[in-house]
Amino acid sequence: MPYFDAASAAPLHPVARQALQASLDEGWADPARLYREGRRARLLLDAAREAAAEAVGCRPDELVFTPSGTQAVHTGISGALAGRRRVGRRLVVSSVEHSAVLHAAAAWEAAGGSVTEVGVDRHGAVSPDMYAAELDDTTALACLQSANHEVGTEQPVREVAEACGAVGVPLLVDAAQSLAWGPVDGDWSLLTASAHKWGGPAGVGLLAVRKGVRFAPQGPAGERESGLSAGFENIPAIVAAAASLRAVRAQAADEAVRLRALVERIRARVPELVPDVEVVGDPVRRLPHVVTFSCLYVDGETLLHELDRAGFSVSSGSSCTSSTLIPSHVLRAMGVLSEGNVRVSLPPSGTTEEDVDRFLEVLPGLVAGVRERFGAPASPAASPSAAASASSPSASEPLVVDALGRRCPIPVIELAKVIDDVPVGGTVRVLSDDEAARLDIPAWCAMRGQEYVGEEEAERGAAYVVRRVG
Amino acid sequence: MPYFDAASAAPLHPVARQALQASLDEGWADPARLYREGRRARLLLDAAREAAAEAVGCRPDELVFTPSGTQAVHTGISGALAGRRRVGRRLVVSSVEHSAVLHAAAAWEAAGGSVTEVGVDRHGAVSPDMYAAELDDTTALACLQSANHEVGTEQPVREVAEACGAVGVPLLVDAAQSLAWGPVDGDWSLLTASAHKWGGPAGVGLLAVRKGVRFAPQGPAGERESGLSAGFENIPAIVAAAASLRAVRAQAADEAVRLRALVERIRARVPELVPDVEVVGDPVRRLPHVVTFSCLYVDGETLLHELDRAGFSVSSGSSCTSSTLIPSHVLRAMGVLSEGNVRVSLPPSGTTEEDVDRFLEVLPGLVAGVRERFGAPASPAASPSAAASASSPSASEPLVVDALGRRCPIPVIELAKVIDDVPVGGTVRVLSDDEAARLDIPAWCAMRGQEYVGEEEAERGAAYVVRRVG
Repeated sequence: MPYFDAASAAPLHPVARQALQASLDEGWADPARLYREGRRARLLLDAAREAAAEAVGCRPDELVFTPSGTQAVHTGISGALAGRRRVGRRLVVSSVEHSAVLHAAAAWEAAGGSVTEVGVDRHGAVSPDMYAAELDDTTALACLQSANHEVGTEQPVREVAEACGAVGVPLLVDAAQSLAWGPVDGDWSLLTASAHKWGGPAGVGLLAVRKGVRFAPQGPAGERESGLSAGFENIPAIVAAAASLRAVRAQAADEAVRLRALVERIRARVPELVPDVEVVGDPVRRLPHVVTFSCLYVDGETLLHELDRAGFSVSSGSSCTSSTLIPSHVLRAMGVLSEGNVRVSLPPSGTTEEDVDRFLEVLPGLVAGVRERFGAPASPAASPSAAASASSPSASEPLVVDALGRRCPIPVIELAKVIDDVPVGGTVRVLSDDEAARLDIPAWCAMRGQEYVGEEEAERGAAYVVRRVG
Repeated sequence: MPYFDAASAAPLHPVARQALQASLDEGWADPARLYREGRRARLLLDAAREAAAEAVGCRPDELVFTPSGTQAVHTGISGALAGRRRVGRRLVVSSVEHSAVLHAAAAWEAAGGSVTEVGVDRHGAVSPDMYAAELDDTTALACLQSANHEVGTEQPVREVAEACGAVGVPLLVDAAQSLAWGPVDGDWSLLTASAHKWGGPAGVGLLAVRKGVRFAPQGPAGERESGLSAGFENIPAIVAAAASLRAVRAQAADEAVRLRALVERIRARVPELVPDVEVVGDPVRRLPHVVTFSCLYVDGETLLHELDRAGFSVSSGSSCTSSTLIPSHVLRAMGVLSEGNVRVSLPPSGTTEEDVDRFLEVLPGLVAGVRERFGAPASPAASPSAAASASSPSASEPLVVDALGRRCPIPVIELAKVIDDVPVGGTVRVLSDDEAARLDIPAWCAMRGQEYVGEEEAERGAAYVVRRVG
């Protein structure tokens, strides 16, 4: 049963399991105590810190363990901002950071700080020049992920770190998705990561703070982990995290080549096998194990269920798979199609060529089935059909599709159904209160070669205006 | 090798180990995902929450898992205070709470809140009336531990909860030390606990917030654990925590009887076997597994090392065993002797009668050895001796002992050495800059039947004035 969601959580690596079990007997005591059980626990903790620091590329005394990657991010951001309070209150982040970073930024803003989001290109990457342009002498901290968790795009960390260095702004790099593959390139100031992303156990995050970076831990004081992470250390899990990081690194070069080939196959074959698909993310500067695509006229949640029934575990950034019914902020920032979104992330050493082949075998039928169920028009929409909810067109009055109260992918499907009723040069207005429509109607226009005119205010939701070009 | 520090961390319970290993295969995936691995993880998480809630005595939807007991305390206190911001900014705590509570209180005070500490009696217990007297209509939250972690004294939680209820103030109970023995009595509003105290794994805390309690989580938003604990859930550890809590509860009644008898033996025999010992903590209302005593003229750290060499792992609240060189705040609040402090806390099902007998066998010799090494006077000090640092007494001039720069237990030893040189009715001034002297000189006076006159300002440190009575 192939599990294709390693970017959410990787199954426990065999080395992590061994290390965890071995250290349950030696690592349970309080490492701050002076008796033998405490000293043994301290030795394990020190050794794990050295191993993890080597993999991160920092000194052991620059690295602390936190209970999760999220907490590493929260602690790192709040501490770095507080440490540079006198410099200014400006936090710069990319618009495609993990929610842990964006939630920390929102908390900072709510507390009176200011947050600047640097946009990304259609592949999900920031431009170093655009990022550099946002740095000023009131900037307390800049954040940039090493690679995007949803689309796999690598960010230009080295260049952004140089720009930050030039103006003396510390850069925090969220390396959650990439640390398994190698150390982060460039002169970062703070770095965060999460063990369960590389096959370590849950419950372990890493926070590295370079010597010389001004840092003032926030919240109640704690005696553990240099005052940066309150609460009793989970030493067996920390040992397992460090051991498995070392193990995945030893295989990283080979695995990267192998998985990159499998990902390339998916990137190339999916658009050939499935009509109306947009493969998203940078085609070259990308993680070896992540590939993401969106399928027009498809409900993401239904497709996920169908793939699950067929034995494939994947995730999605479609609005219907989120509790807020808003498409993923990453897809929105990129301005790409969000409906029928599928992220495939292959676990290292757990994915075979056969798994990928079988995925490519079942996917086209599943997508076709979902489209049929939703009454999606054939591709490319050829036969004119009068949608029930569409007003009749006339010379004076533009066509209106009322998709209010209907959710993704229905508004786009309704638009597709009526486009042939629109005279060439004429417009159609799609009324929708579904957040996905804002992203998916322009994306549909680009895929279908129609012109997206823009969004107009409406009594409920918004009116998306499309001009028929061909 | 008997481990007698269960109040710091208990060795992993066999049931915790089994549950942890069994759930490593089923519990690693993201419980928020809809595919089968995620659903399996969710089932484990839900079942663990039900089991833990039953043991706590709350509804499953009132209980969240946090990465540690410390974080449960921090989250519980900050969220409850913020939830009642409009009522007032006053936080009431006992003076003998765990440092997690006191650190959260200090952070609250630093942020502009006010904190009131309710003192304790010589046994370490708050008085319900004194506690109730501190509650007013600006009190946002009250905190009280179920039992003290250093001396084992149980607090009158039921009575304090009633007093809180009468004025509508929520009560947070830190149940870290007692939850293994049974649910907390009384009508609490919030409750915290820590799994590694009962033989569960590190990395799991519990936070219960009763329905109806106003609560506003602080810090960056999180999607997990009802927004009360950010970061990926550590499900195998959570499963192990819940399973082991159930297991220790099943044995709790029998183990409490067994351990209480062993603790009683230590409480009774240590003062018989070792001269000049003060056994501290309530003799009756106490945890079944904790006993604490202090030894006059003994350096706590040296005694801990000697006990460790003899195979016994214990902890201490003496100043010399803390990084700050200040005696434990619990011993200070109780006003009891802090030098040569030893806490014995017996792990359930891991302690035999023979272990305790051997401890009682080796302890007297070890204490005597440490005293000899420090040149402590014999008990009770009989033969007059001129201390090198003491000025000669005269009719007009009181005796002065200069113990500046000397650490516990030296100032008290120097005092004991010169007391016979003081005429009955005369006084001696001990100059000391050691924080332990403030506690231990009055305690020595009480043990020796001399009069502690008080503390005077001095150029360096303080002058402690003692009048010879007999």
